[in-house]
Amino acid sequence: MNFCSECGEKVRIGIPDDDNRPRHICDACHTIHYHNPKIVAGTVPVYGDKVLLCKRAIEPRIGYWTLPAGFMENEETTVEAAARETWEEAQAKVDISHLYVLIDTTVISQVYMMFLADMPKPEYAAGPESLEVELFAEEDIPWGELAFPTIEKTLRLYFEDRRKGSFPMHQCDVNQEDRDRFYAAIEAEKAC
Amino acid sequence: MNFCSECGEKVRIGIPDDDNRPRHICDACHTIHYHNPKIVAGTVPVYGDKVLLCKRAIEPRIGYWTLPAGFMENEETTVEAAARETWEEAQAKVDISHLYVLIDTTVISQVYMMFLADMPKPEYAAGPESLEVELFAEEDIPWGELAFPTIEKTLRLYFEDRRKGSFPMHQCDVNQEDRDRFYAAIEAEKAC
Repeated sequence: MNFCSECGEKVRIGIPDDDNRPRHICDACHTIHYHNPKIVAGTVPVYGDKVLLCKRAIEPRIGYWTLPAGFMENEETTVEAAARETWEEAQAKVDISHLYVLIDTTVISQVYMMFLADMPKPEYAAGPESLEVELFAEEDIPWGELAFPTIEKTLRLYFEDRRKGSFPMHQCDVNQEDRDRFYAAIEAEKAC
Repeated sequence: MNFCSECGEKVRIGIPDDDNRPRHICDACHTIHYHNPKIVAGTVPVYGDKVLLCKRAIEPRIGYWTLPAGFMENEETTVEAAARETWEEAQAKVDISHLYVLIDTTVISQVYMMFLADMPKPEYAAGPESLEVELFAEEDIPWGELAFPTIEKTLRLYFEDRRKGSFPMHQCDVNQEDRDRFYAAIEAEKAC
């Protein structure tokens, strides 16, 4: 942020009087601009013993596989956001069960909210943001070609829970170290 | 938003080519500005059979009672945000148990994430955003002086669950009708 979105003047970074962290401040119109984490809402769409993944057609991580998920929009619920993203990216209709994995990704200020979802029919197709969409059994999951550490984390929890036969909500975080390890492993796999 | 925060030029509202909803678009530097829901993180701080509430010292709803909660900041986890808000507003240290109530408030594009929390000691004080902080037994909750419908909803769920002896996560939403009913009831109470 360089300019005030209210009045168009230059902003400066400073700590407001009654605050304790740096904000973008406009001295012309006295607006303080706050920046807050974004919610990424998505699903783990399950059909029988398979999970639906999408190969990304857009950056970041074009060509890598992901669960359908994306930024929640204003004026929708988290469940609506998760279902909408599943439709947009995978053209799949799902029955959402419950909030399954909540992941804080502090390094990029995103909160992932992944809902467990049932696919009543094996109907899906690549939406505009996907190159391919496919149902994967556990043994076929492309672990070395996943887009994000949050997606790997969610899938690992899902298959573990499936062996145990219950799907409680998980809350966890993906920190810088987790991210470094994830991307290094993917790069190593690619080099082979 | 009137001006581009990147380059300072006027923005217009339009639907970008590869999108399906109106955004603020800058034709000068081609930035598209997205606005997304904010997370309000807070706690239900419990000491014995009592719950800690704060009387708000700031707008909106100055003078009304609330659970400690506020906007999640970048670079923190949801649990850290909830604990920080509890400290800032009520100067109380809590042990957070789990995500207890998730409320979508689509009319104001906020997602409330309220965590159940234990107060190891009955130590608390009004932080800068509170006029008073107090522990309330169920029969003393100031139902007619609560700040927000999300707070009423969370407290009602808590006392119901306490009677049942279990505190599963709840996901619900507060829509325009719920909000109208809540504020009308508060106004009616005040008029008496």
